[in-house]
Amino acid sequence: MTRAYNFNAGPAGLPLPALERAQRELLDFEGTGMSIMEHSHRGKAYERVHNEAIQLLRELLGVPDTHHVLFLQGGASLQFAMVPMNLVPAGKSADYILTGGWSEKAYEEAGRVAKVRIAASTAVEKKYVRIPRQNELALDPDASYVHLTSNNTLFGTQWHRFPDVGQVPLVADMSSDFLWRKFDVTRFALIYAGAQKNIGPSGVTVVLVKKDLVDAARKDIPTILRYGTHAANNSLYNTPPTFGIYLMRNVLSYTKEIGGLEEIERRNRKKAEVLYGALDARPEFFRAPVEKESRSTMNVVFRLPTEELEKKFLAEATERRMVGLAGHRSTGGIRVSAYNAVGLEAVEVLVSFMDEFAKRG
Amino acid sequence: MTRAYNFNAGPAGLPLPALERAQRELLDFEGTGMSIMEHSHRGKAYERVHNEAIQLLRELLGVPDTHHVLFLQGGASLQFAMVPMNLVPAGKSADYILTGGWSEKAYEEAGRVAKVRIAASTAVEKKYVRIPRQNELALDPDASYVHLTSNNTLFGTQWHRFPDVGQVPLVADMSSDFLWRKFDVTRFALIYAGAQKNIGPSGVTVVLVKKDLVDAARKDIPTILRYGTHAANNSLYNTPPTFGIYLMRNVLSYTKEIGGLEEIERRNRKKAEVLYGALDARPEFFRAPVEKESRSTMNVVFRLPTEELEKKFLAEATERRMVGLAGHRSTGGIRVSAYNAVGLEAVEVLVSFMDEFAKRG
Repeated sequence: MTRAYNFNAGPAGLPLPALERAQRELLDFEGTGMSIMEHSHRGKAYERVHNEAIQLLRELLGVPDTHHVLFLQGGASLQFAMVPMNLVPAGKSADYILTGGWSEKAYEEAGRVAKVRIAASTAVEKKYVRIPRQNELALDPDASYVHLTSNNTLFGTQWHRFPDVGQVPLVADMSSDFLWRKFDVTRFALIYAGAQKNIGPSGVTVVLVKKDLVDAARKDIPTILRYGTHAANNSLYNTPPTFGIYLMRNVLSYTKEIGGLEEIERRNRKKAEVLYGALDARPEFFRAPVEKESRSTMNVVFRLPTEELEKKFLAEATERRMVGLAGHRSTGGIRVSAYNAVGLEAVEVLVSFMDEFAKRG
Repeated sequence: MTRAYNFNAGPAGLPLPALERAQRELLDFEGTGMSIMEHSHRGKAYERVHNEAIQLLRELLGVPDTHHVLFLQGGASLQFAMVPMNLVPAGKSADYILTGGWSEKAYEEAGRVAKVRIAASTAVEKKYVRIPRQNELALDPDASYVHLTSNNTLFGTQWHRFPDVGQVPLVADMSSDFLWRKFDVTRFALIYAGAQKNIGPSGVTVVLVKKDLVDAARKDIPTILRYGTHAANNSLYNTPPTFGIYLMRNVLSYTKEIGGLEEIERRNRKKAEVLYGALDARPEFFRAPVEKESRSTMNVVFRLPTEELEKKFLAEATERRMVGLAGHRSTGGIRVSAYNAVGLEAVEVLVSFMDEFAKRG
């Protein structure tokens, strides 16, 4: 079997060993004569997988005991509603920092269920090419929380240093750069991430949330939408997406095996260096719109001289088994998503094609 | 590999050919060099699978054009909230028919977001051993809808003929007996079902809903919780649980191959006949609490003379590779879940063990 070079923006590529493990035991999980999908979520076999996934996440990322690790459903889109429903009591409001299409969506959704404010926005004519600086944040010290999107898949920007928001709880949508490196989890009151970029298949959402925040959250909302429900039941209040969590366990376990987040970060930085290096080497051909300090290690976006050349580039890339390189339908251009499972080899194949294509003009 | 006899109540067994197909192409979906999990949900490969699953559901069940087929996340537990949030406008109320633990939960959750009424309940000392008769329903002709649970996994009862609710929209939680036979879908305004019993892995919820009901639904709730959002986007508003839908597609495709719901119903009726036959043949040993007319074809519950014998029964069954036979923790006893993927062979192995066990006393 020849694997494609998968640059999809999500669902994205997964580490081959994690998939091979799933394939090997798909019909017979650990000698039980059943697929892990066929096990009860209240049985011992699944429970071990579930708890191992939680434990591996805690270990890899250094999640302290002050925070719950929850596995939910519904992706970031459901979190856009759950966060304000849980965390904004009547009479209070929440601050949003806008850095792209996803943070705009988070802000709009929150506005349907709570009072919201824009604390900063780097939009210029609906485009975002950078992350705001600390002195550009107009924070409300009484806000229930400040929300940011740590990485912006559409525009290819990323927070490299998280802002100082004082005593206000910091909430982050990390869907597209969760688990690409270590960071100080204690600075965040709540982090949410759809699994389908760096850590698993779609259908699982990881939430890290401070225990005291959960205790103080609103109770007058549907049971299934309360973080407290899932925290009190170890994410087993209702039937979880067991296969998705199992596969995430495989990815986390493989991540640990190859050296944890230190190694993942090293690889990702190298990939980004090679990609941006290729862009910067030919500024007359590749236009990289993002401010250098805000460049994403996960999603590298650029334009070619004409849309016609972009089409040709994408078609030729596909012939060479490189998939997922078209920019988001709202932005156009080229987007290279180089998530954890994308190897340096794939990036090198791409970069050598980019060079060749640019030379041809 | 020796397969277990899987009588789990859900997540439950899946047809082996559907799993084998998934195993074969887990690393390379249709020659694309990628797992179906690694494909974009906006790409052609996944889109074909997605639409095929919808089409197969329509075909197998005879879902008319008046109804949307939606694939959501969050299981029945999220539907408990979404149904009233979407369908009960201010000043109106909804009717609930209580026949077990799950309909109680649906009723309680609806009560958090809307006005609700109990239209009937067959509870006697917190136990439910039958489905109510038509003349026991105290229906509100102005209700936004009447809600019922078509099959009760805890107590082993099932609606064999759906009630006449006049002009009021009928809503059903069919999580535990969806797709076990054909029925007149047009009698229902909305049907929801977690996939993990008869049609797939956990993490996918199927919703069939009348188009005019969606159009008239409330708009003042979070976007992700509105049926209209998912209907307008062919269930691709946000990233769907692609692998779960793919696997469901495999199950549906296999179901069609073996003869569709006519064949599935025939098999299920035969399995139920064999199981209840074994219970009725030894009434001095097996106590089957459910009224005969209300007996479930999906979950067959019974008690042995003592709890000690029940423990022994379960332990010996496990030794013979029969799993999932313990009754729900809230009810105790024995529960045989004989969903679509459970073969007659498995039921015969179980019944012959039951006979032998009863003879020993």
